[in-house]
Amino acid sequence: MASKEAEVITDIAAMRNWSRSSKYQQQSPTPKTLALVPTMGFLHAGHLSLVRRARSLADLVAVSIYVNPGQFSPTEDLSTYPSDLAGDLRKLADAGGVDAVFCPRNLYDYVGGGKVRRGDDGGEERGAVSCVEGEHETWIRVEGLEKGLCGRSRPVFFRGVATVVAKLFNIVEPDFALFGKKDYQQWRVICRMVRDLNFSVEIIGSEIVREVDGLAMSSRNVHLSPEEREKALSINKSLSKAKFAAENGQETCQRMKLLIIQSITEAGGRIDYAEIVEQETLKPVEVITSPVVICVAAWFGNVRLIDNMEINI
Amino acid sequence: MASKEAEVITDIAAMRNWSRSSKYQQQSPTPKTLALVPTMGFLHAGHLSLVRRARSLADLVAVSIYVNPGQFSPTEDLSTYPSDLAGDLRKLADAGGVDAVFCPRNLYDYVGGGKVRRGDDGGEERGAVSCVEGEHETWIRVEGLEKGLCGRSRPVFFRGVATVVAKLFNIVEPDFALFGKKDYQQWRVICRMVRDLNFSVEIIGSEIVREVDGLAMSSRNVHLSPEEREKALSINKSLSKAKFAAENGQETCQRMKLLIIQSITEAGGRIDYAEIVEQETLKPVEVITSPVVICVAAWFGNVRLIDNMEINI
Repeated sequence: MASKEAEVITDIAAMRNWSRSSKYQQQSPTPKTLALVPTMGFLHAGHLSLVRRARSLADLVAVSIYVNPGQFSPTEDLSTYPSDLAGDLRKLADAGGVDAVFCPRNLYDYVGGGKVRRGDDGGEERGAVSCVEGEHETWIRVEGLEKGLCGRSRPVFFRGVATVVAKLFNIVEPDFALFGKKDYQQWRVICRMVRDLNFSVEIIGSEIVREVDGLAMSSRNVHLSPEEREKALSINKSLSKAKFAAENGQETCQRMKLLIIQSITEAGGRIDYAEIVEQETLKPVEVITSPVVICVAAWFGNVRLIDNMEINI
Repeated sequence: MASKEAEVITDIAAMRNWSRSSKYQQQSPTPKTLALVPTMGFLHAGHLSLVRRARSLADLVAVSIYVNPGQFSPTEDLSTYPSDLAGDLRKLADAGGVDAVFCPRNLYDYVGGGKVRRGDDGGEERGAVSCVEGEHETWIRVEGLEKGLCGRSRPVFFRGVATVVAKLFNIVEPDFALFGKKDYQQWRVICRMVRDLNFSVEIIGSEIVREVDGLAMSSRNVHLSPEEREKALSINKSLSKAKFAAENGQETCQRMKLLIIQSITEAGGRIDYAEIVEQETLKPVEVITSPVVICVAAWFGNVRLIDNMEINI
């Protein structure tokens, strides 16, 4: 397939206009379908697998590249989140091309004065806060699914994700949207939001793409030192062992979680959580009698990594 | 204009399909525009004025009729909220007709088991609760505007309104949506939600329609006894007096609010609130130096009424 030049769009109205005029064309009897791959950029093979999947599903493919301040708290790594727009555009072209790339400047700036705070400057009057400052005050809460796992240590994360994805859906108006299952809870939150708010978007969850040594692909991996990267393999290794054990009759979650925690800690990681939960509700289980997912978050140096494995028994 | 038979639609997919196929027609070079008038039914002249305004704005008009359990708490009047679908359809036809009427059965039932609780049955584990039971867990919060005025005594009201309006927007896909300014805070909440979530819907706020004696039209007026109805005129009278005073140099809000409270209380009403606030932010003001709105909520018997008047000085 010949690579093609994507239309790079930064303006919200231009993006919606592109979507509508591309989908509804005079000469075509039925509207074309559009798939959106929402990303925060610094693309890797995981993103590109989503793009390929998108092309197989829909007539048109758009990729959004936007580091969303709404999902970072002021103490998190918004300021160091990696970015490389030129590189991203090249990777997309090399991977066969997409039809449009949406790179908005600031999705929370309504009056020309919307600021983004990139670090913790202390005083803050409101309750849970993100890096969005200014007039924005509408947040989508998926009240059950947002609470556990990553929600415990990142209280503004899922409201920020749900809100920006709703904004992107309303701007891009896709028929499909693709999310990597590496961010398992995020995928479930979005599925629930789409159902509960009747968005006419079909959500596709795509399998985790790993490096050859098993590390789950993540834009944050670039911040790992070679030593940290080596230690971080303990996540995938311990998840694989636990999955093998579960598939061979080990049913007691407490023991499996302890083994994961022990193995990551011994490798030099700092555990945020290791949980075994139901796949749809993300409710913790004690004994595995139906499909579950093992979810892990752990720090290596200053880098927080997440990973998971589904167990379908 | 000849009245026409509206298409009455109860199914979500059928509603979206009607909207898309009506807007995008092969023979038409540009899509038709669609205006939505969201209502809870039991239509009165206020609703019909929104319908007329909608017809002047758009090629197609849809009215939704749905008593939204998401905006009622279990202690409120969901079970006694008046309804008369046959009468509503007749009124719409008599008023010149609309293109579609959307009357969904239960917008929160995703798995066939979604229940609605119509009264307070005591035990409730969650925090702020509405009359929605079951699997729904996504709520839109307009965190600033939802708090004051009606938000104080009705803590789940605006999240319920914002959420159901988002659902209706995603199902009906209108270009315009019309709201009465009688529900002033609701109108402002919806405007803010639309801006913050990038809905491509233009929101129109329409002036309050009053009975000849000045009472603001409301579906709940039907529950007033003749005596209560007479007493309720004190709302409009005291608002008019306060507006007159403000327009003639009275700037001190404290005194104006006291006069309103006194006048309604003396008439036999029970004040929920009387506030003078900025028109866009709904923040209370002490002295009137820019456009404000006086907002009142008061009980007459078991009926809670709201009303307001803008002062544009």
